[in-house]
Amino acid sequence: MKKKLCIATFISIFWVGFSFAQYADVYPTNWWVGMKNNKVQLLIKSADSSLYKSVVTIKYPGITLGKVSTFENGKYLAVDITIGATAKPGNVKINLNNNGATNTISWPLAARRKGNGSSFAQGVTSADFIYLLMPDRFSNGNTGNDRIAGMRDQSLSRDSLFTRHGGDLQGVINHLDYLQSLGVTTLWMTPVLENDRTERTEHGYGFTDQYKIDARLGGADAYKSLSDALHQRGMKLIQDAVYNHVDIDHFLVKEPPSKDWLHQWPNYTGTNYKDQPIFDPYGAAADKKITTDGWFTPLMPDVNQGNPFMANFLIQNAIWSVETFGVDGWRIDTYLYNDLGFMNKCNKALMDEYPKITMFGETWVHGTVSQAYMVDNTMKLPFKSNLQGVTDFQTNLYGIIPALTQNFGWTEGVNKLYTTLANDIVYTNPMRNVNFLDNHDLSRFFSIVGENVEKQKTGIMWLFTCRGIPQMYYGTEILMKGFTNPDGWVRLDFPGGWQGDSKNAFTGQGLTDDEKSVQELVKTLGNYRKHASALQTGKMMQYVPQDGLYVYFRYDAQQTIMCIMNTDQKDRAIDFTKYAERTNGFSKAESVVSNNKYSTKDQPVIPANSMWVLELKQ
Amino acid sequence: MKKKLCIATFISIFWVGFSFAQYADVYPTNWWVGMKNNKVQLLIKSADSSLYKSVVTIKYPGITLGKVSTFENGKYLAVDITIGATAKPGNVKINLNNNGATNTISWPLAARRKGNGSSFAQGVTSADFIYLLMPDRFSNGNTGNDRIAGMRDQSLSRDSLFTRHGGDLQGVINHLDYLQSLGVTTLWMTPVLENDRTERTEHGYGFTDQYKIDARLGGADAYKSLSDALHQRGMKLIQDAVYNHVDIDHFLVKEPPSKDWLHQWPNYTGTNYKDQPIFDPYGAAADKKITTDGWFTPLMPDVNQGNPFMANFLIQNAIWSVETFGVDGWRIDTYLYNDLGFMNKCNKALMDEYPKITMFGETWVHGTVSQAYMVDNTMKLPFKSNLQGVTDFQTNLYGIIPALTQNFGWTEGVNKLYTTLANDIVYTNPMRNVNFLDNHDLSRFFSIVGENVEKQKTGIMWLFTCRGIPQMYYGTEILMKGFTNPDGWVRLDFPGGWQGDSKNAFTGQGLTDDEKSVQELVKTLGNYRKHASALQTGKMMQYVPQDGLYVYFRYDAQQTIMCIMNTDQKDRAIDFTKYAERTNGFSKAESVVSNNKYSTKDQPVIPANSMWVLELKQ
Repeated sequence: MKKKLCIATFISIFWVGFSFAQYADVYPTNWWVGMKNNKVQLLIKSADSSLYKSVVTIKYPGITLGKVSTFENGKYLAVDITIGATAKPGNVKINLNNNGATNTISWPLAARRKGNGSSFAQGVTSADFIYLLMPDRFSNGNTGNDRIAGMRDQSLSRDSLFTRHGGDLQGVINHLDYLQSLGVTTLWMTPVLENDRTERTEHGYGFTDQYKIDARLGGADAYKSLSDALHQRGMKLIQDAVYNHVDIDHFLVKEPPSKDWLHQWPNYTGTNYKDQPIFDPYGAAADKKITTDGWFTPLMPDVNQGNPFMANFLIQNAIWSVETFGVDGWRIDTYLYNDLGFMNKCNKALMDEYPKITMFGETWVHGTVSQAYMVDNTMKLPFKSNLQGVTDFQTNLYGIIPALTQNFGWTEGVNKLYTTLANDIVYTNPMRNVNFLDNHDLSRFFSIVGENVEKQKTGIMWLFTCRGIPQMYYGTEILMKGFTNPDGWVRLDFPGGWQGDSKNAFTGQGLTDDEKSVQELVKTLGNYRKHASALQTGKMMQYVPQDGLYVYFRYDAQQTIMCIMNTDQKDRAIDFTKYAERTNGFSKAESVVSNNKYSTKDQPVIPANSMWVLELKQ
Repeated sequence: MKKKLCIATFISIFWVGFSFAQYADVYPTNWWVGMKNNKVQLLIKSADSSLYKSVVTIKYPGITLGKVSTFENGKYLAVDITIGATAKPGNVKINLNNNGATNTISWPLAARRKGNGSSFAQGVTSADFIYLLMPDRFSNGNTGNDRIAGMRDQSLSRDSLFTRHGGDLQGVINHLDYLQSLGVTTLWMTPVLENDRTERTEHGYGFTDQYKIDARLGGADAYKSLSDALHQRGMKLIQDAVYNHVDIDHFLVKEPPSKDWLHQWPNYTGTNYKDQPIFDPYGAAADKKITTDGWFTPLMPDVNQGNPFMANFLIQNAIWSVETFGVDGWRIDTYLYNDLGFMNKCNKALMDEYPKITMFGETWVHGTVSQAYMVDNTMKLPFKSNLQGVTDFQTNLYGIIPALTQNFGWTEGVNKLYTTLANDIVYTNPMRNVNFLDNHDLSRFFSIVGENVEKQKTGIMWLFTCRGIPQMYYGTEILMKGFTNPDGWVRLDFPGGWQGDSKNAFTGQGLTDDEKSVQELVKTLGNYRKHASALQTGKMMQYVPQDGLYVYFRYDAQQTIMCIMNTDQKDRAIDFTKYAERTNGFSKAESVVSNNKYSTKDQPVIPANSMWVLELKQ
């Protein structure tokens, strides 16, 4: 008896030990007590192909075991649990009894992060200023993690566009002073989740495990530190989410629970990258299937969000990320290629758990109707998106870019910007849309406007004064340039981010006068905006552009800001009385970026190709 | 006594006689018993500036006199009457007693036109094919009315673009066989109302009296004859309405009841021709006022539809026109410049009286959202248009024109047509939109496509097969060409419409082979469409264009029609199985315009730059 017991104990200890390290992984890797979302589906993955035979038992006060599901692949189980109100933090033991042997997994149940809606999950609004950066390309704060042994991509060379450059989260932490000096309130980084793929890991969009932060960026600890540092400064964190696809080296692709966790095709079928099949009343089902189920690239398989287990896996990971890292806002990649019904469910789960959280989706489409379809809109249609905002490609591609690159015409030049904004009637709340001049996928704005510094300044002034949420891509403030041929050219290192950089945008060392003046403009406007209620939450009024002169206002009961964009090749006198609806009652107009002050009785002359932002005073 | 009586009788007879001829005019010039709209506001206009002092009495069984209103201008009175159910047709005597003298006007109350909704006011739907012509330029059926003594424009020269050419309604009547041979079901003419203006009377949009049909076109009798002739053939009549403006020589402009019958400006102010101020959530009131209240041209003053008397005048004239001439459908000029609230009221009055009547508005705008705002749409907005359809400038400017004139690209070429149609989600019923290749204001399609006959044929095939109502401009069927510099070049005479024309499109005399073949194509498709339920009322399905090849279907339970537009420079093999959702179950595909028949198992080759319309058969 004694001997037998001893062996049993030994086996038990052995298995328990093995389970922690290797017997089975559980996703989500932990959960919390006191969540609204207290029904969790644990995906258990083991190397043991007989896992599916296990009888699952959980004895933990407050936790109720629900359904246990098996898959084609015997190494997986899905275990539904309910975490009752009485459950307390601790390690939950999940017992897997298989043919007499019991494997026990310890699964942490934690106390909740404090400050839901106040110090995290705060939401990002038009009062904010978002700075987008690529962590591999911004600053290398820890050279010790530049290469991580065992990871597939061992490249490391700043001379090449697509190898790793060594930037990391510590580099971002090191320069929060700089971001804050620009007036930035919110940081959005291209994804920080593990991209253990063979190449092109610089952008972060090829997830291999959504429960790991990429070790080369500093891992989960660095991400938590960055989040804490941001929140200590009153700043916010946006996480970049990819629900649509994963990397070909993702563990659920290499060894899927069942074939239908991915959209499988007889022959490789990429998405058509078309948005119309999603909403076209005349669309063919075959086209829609290709749009949503086609693979994003041959290395980025399309996830089957119609599989309820996969759907739960993604939704739980989203909630888990917010609670673990203190995320405030959510940017959703390739929004239109997702199953939009799934997206509504996923968005709702986040909003239910975090009432103040906000999210915006990438809508790289050509046309207001299409973009509006993806977001909360005014159209009465069978499908109704609950997405709050979008990356507003319309105010970019059909707005500020033609405004500054096309000659003025009936439908060209700044008339495009004007008419695109007038189309805002299709959005329930266009103030939630995110405006931008460029991003990691687009040619740099400074290159688009022909490296014209005044146009860059006009673009920036527009960005800070238009309705919506301004988002700036790292380096725009110092005239970084580059066309997307290939996209690596728009993902160059931020100068000063690496030790020994001869040019340093953080200190100003080596910046040209133009670069300094644009950086100064961003600082002035970014900080001005923090206290400018008219820009943060005010209404907008725009006048029909005339001969390239575009005048619009942001205003509320406290403040009126007049924005004058002269896209014409000629200087133009400004007659304030033409805009009486907004200028009445004001006698002065003071530039918010220079010392210029005007009387509204005068007709000051704005130079060709330039912009003024004036605060009106009584 | 006797003498006195005699004089009184004489005076009475004199005044009655005078009243018919000169003492006062009444608008509407008559009304009917049994109308739903039985509350009529009579605008009485006299040369007598003391008219306003008159005491009005009406003694006519069933008619109740209501309010009498005076104006700044003493020559006018507005008299509200209600025509009760018991009223019978007859001449209503309206007595105007002014300081003891009585002027009596005789105002006809008629029996209603028969056949509301069946032989007139039938509505024009996607089952119809509309032919648009300019009566002065189509055919001269009566040389006796080429010049009318006393009218301001005495020009008459076919050698000049903007003088009168002599075409008239009798010319149209003479050629209804021709129109019917094309498959035309519905005639839309540029306006036939009196344009007694000094010049540019050829287009008809400068009304001087909405209660008169232009005498040079044959007057009211000819218009009634044309309407009768059309209805006898089972054809329909669309009237072209202009509510927004009138001519500077309109009697209500030359001698207005009050200043506010027109929108007056301190200095001449033309409309900005911009649509955005109407709906822009950020629009300035000043811009909106210019859009809607600015004059269309210096010779076309803007009517104040906010003046309830002017509003009644316009609405009653619309109803009067339908009842008098047997109009079936209504095309509304410059829709967006109107007061849209007034337009809703006016449209509703017509629809209340004529439940089957349809109307579509001219929406010469650039963008689906803007166009949708003007019409019954799916957007939840404070203003909701009740207009049924529009002249679909989007499928023209951003549809068939780029499809056939631009190289194929991600957002160019036939992709524009595809994407514009996908945007149909904003319309409540896009089948009510009117498609066209060109009209009297636009460059001729044949010129736009570089006088490429195959492209003209493709355009025509598209016109007959796209969702919505096809509208063809006179001469498109015989390759008439011309750019709008100036617009006179697109308003040339229809060959054969004048005696002695060497070229005659009615008989075919002098037509080139190309012209004949296009005319034949229109005849074939126009007549085929009359019995093709899939084209008339069927659903549409379109596939994502690939390399310039655009495939769409029209289908219902009875019929499936496959349309293949190859805009590429290369011939292309058609794989029917790629469109399985619609081709499944069919073994044959037969051209509806040639004798070509294909097996759906084969992969027939469609030549570069051409189109096929195939009916699928089992």
